[in-house]
Amino acid sequence: MRLIRTSANLFVRLSPRQLSTKIIPRPPPPVFKTHQTTKSHIDIMEAQQVPKTCKVILSDTIAKKLLSEVRETLAKIQGPGASKPTLAAFLATDDPSALQYAEWSKKTCEENGFNFDLRKVDKEDLEEGIIAANNDDQVDGILVYYPIWVGNHSQDKYIKETVALSKDVEGLCHTHLFNMYHNVRFLDPPANLKKSILPCTPLAIVKTLEYLQIYNPILAYGNRLFGKTITVINRSEVNGRPLAALLANDGATVYSVDVTGVQVFTRGEGIRQLRHQVHDKEGWELKDVLPLSDVVIGGVPTEKFKVPTELLRDGAVCINFSSFRNFDGPAVKEKASIYVPSIGKVTIAVLLRNLVRLIANRPRPEGSAPEDPKDAKARSETFIEG
Amino acid sequence: MRLIRTSANLFVRLSPRQLSTKIIPRPPPPVFKTHQTTKSHIDIMEAQQVPKTCKVILSDTIAKKLLSEVRETLAKIQGPGASKPTLAAFLATDDPSALQYAEWSKKTCEENGFNFDLRKVDKEDLEEGIIAANNDDQVDGILVYYPIWVGNHSQDKYIKETVALSKDVEGLCHTHLFNMYHNVRFLDPPANLKKSILPCTPLAIVKTLEYLQIYNPILAYGNRLFGKTITVINRSEVNGRPLAALLANDGATVYSVDVTGVQVFTRGEGIRQLRHQVHDKEGWELKDVLPLSDVVIGGVPTEKFKVPTELLRDGAVCINFSSFRNFDGPAVKEKASIYVPSIGKVTIAVLLRNLVRLIANRPRPEGSAPEDPKDAKARSETFIEG
Repeated sequence: MRLIRTSANLFVRLSPRQLSTKIIPRPPPPVFKTHQTTKSHIDIMEAQQVPKTCKVILSDTIAKKLLSEVRETLAKIQGPGASKPTLAAFLATDDPSALQYAEWSKKTCEENGFNFDLRKVDKEDLEEGIIAANNDDQVDGILVYYPIWVGNHSQDKYIKETVALSKDVEGLCHTHLFNMYHNVRFLDPPANLKKSILPCTPLAIVKTLEYLQIYNPILAYGNRLFGKTITVINRSEVNGRPLAALLANDGATVYSVDVTGVQVFTRGEGIRQLRHQVHDKEGWELKDVLPLSDVVIGGVPTEKFKVPTELLRDGAVCINFSSFRNFDGPAVKEKASIYVPSIGKVTIAVLLRNLVRLIANRPRPEGSAPEDPKDAKARSETFIEG
Repeated sequence: MRLIRTSANLFVRLSPRQLSTKIIPRPPPPVFKTHQTTKSHIDIMEAQQVPKTCKVILSDTIAKKLLSEVRETLAKIQGPGASKPTLAAFLATDDPSALQYAEWSKKTCEENGFNFDLRKVDKEDLEEGIIAANNDDQVDGILVYYPIWVGNHSQDKYIKETVALSKDVEGLCHTHLFNMYHNVRFLDPPANLKKSILPCTPLAIVKTLEYLQIYNPILAYGNRLFGKTITVINRSEVNGRPLAALLANDGATVYSVDVTGVQVFTRGEGIRQLRHQVHDKEGWELKDVLPLSDVVIGGVPTEKFKVPTELLRDGAVCINFSSFRNFDGPAVKEKASIYVPSIGKVTIAVLLRNLVRLIANRPRPEGSAPEDPKDAKARSETFIEG
């Protein structure tokens, strides 16, 4: 991933207008009726507590809600007595953070009724291992820890394409990515019963924004971010770019920021386009987009980078998905309305959600008895919105 | 009410930066795997329908939800077999719009289990009539149609103060207004069981914004508009000024606009103040605040005034509370995310809601049997939030 350029001389430019603000006297002092004491009012005012202004939401809280939906939906589509679904996870790297992610995933799987089958393999045996898992009816979903060939994106990409579409729990196969970028939500038109899989980290942020009610359910599904301005700091192929695309496809104006500059992802005026388009904002920098943004999402993988708090809009929603803290915690809590310091657990919950979707999407084995209409309905309605 | 100045030469100023936008090519054309046909994807993309972007919400929809809460709450606090509450409405003017409002109120009252007692009186007998109603146990709330002495605000104000605080269903007595402006939410500190009454039209707009999920329930009660920028066009004492105060007390940055200029109502940076303060924005006009606003609320009582659609932020929420249409309907639907063309029925629903609150606030008659703890709880929890 490319790093964001941090500028040492960031500052807010105030227009002469903004500086000309003048204090107006309060409403005239109250004249109380004789049966009313002045003191009681003053007492109330002094005794009132200002509630904490910034709500800090931990990823665990959001993940719990998602996992409970995952368990319920799995029970609905599987019926009683079904065996536990199995997620096969291929570890072909000795990156300690991959190992830690594997441990968390194992724990979450086991707590929620899934088998987690960690397969440690040599790089050279990885393709063969994946093909075997593709063909193994006991495996419901396949996960691979990347990067494997550090600095060789095309070899990693080759592995991503090796995973069968029907077991691609991470949404990294080209067909899934194509659908995401083009705002195509189903794999089986025109029936539109099988939802396409979205990559876990970007989808975890979407689910976080839904939880925070930034998605407005009053609006039509697919348009629920209309009117929202969002900055995403990171434009990697794995996270930042797909995230900007997803949010813009849902109706937001998204400023995507990295060291090369700012791009804006939108569906155009009145969101009349079917899918987002991308435009360069020549000469724009982070300091130009932060004050415009209702939501600021940081994903810069370095300890050095901090979002300049003084440029945030008062009451902004701040979300960090980097493993480093992109926000200055104590400062951001004085300015933001909502702060989500990490989304790690949401990502694992979304992984299991994707796995349940794969199971719901799966054709029934040839020669099996006709499906109960109730079960068929449950499968086609799995996580029907998003 | 003062009218807003409409400027003939409104225009959006674009910075050189905004003009320098350059189109970037889409993601590279998809390379399909051999088992995937190109056609199916193209078909999906073409067949996709863009959902209607602007959601038009009618006041009836919002009112229905409120009225159902009103009926449920009334049943809870009254218990079975209680008599219908009575709203006494004094009509001392021959203004046809007052008469029409009275007819609507009568219909809504009767449909929802309330008596509506319209009392047509001469101006000279009004004070005496109100005093009699204040002392009449059969009257639960008192409504007066204003203006009565057109051009003589203080005589109307005198009548407003004549209504007993415990029957002031419109929230126009000074104590209620004082509490509203000072963000004091209860009448009975420190017990804080009896909520203060808010004026109907401003409260109807608050309830509309709650229905539209502009209030974010993730945030603490009292702070749920934190991060939202709202323009209110109208600063009358009856509607615009109390509305701006209510919204700012709930955490919003509110631009209050009328012919005399723009004021900003806020609780300051990080909404750390207990209640709003007002500042003049010297030299600012409507065209300066519209592009900044998530929500635009029009209340200008003339046919001539229209909010300039081209200055609205893409995806803004637009609400009209004037009896004239302050927005150009067809144009605003191409730009707004939500459009509420009127709030009339919400106002009447809120009137009944206030009446139920007055009943819940009422002390039990002296010498009556101790109240069932369940009923006492229901009374203290009447519309607990807002």
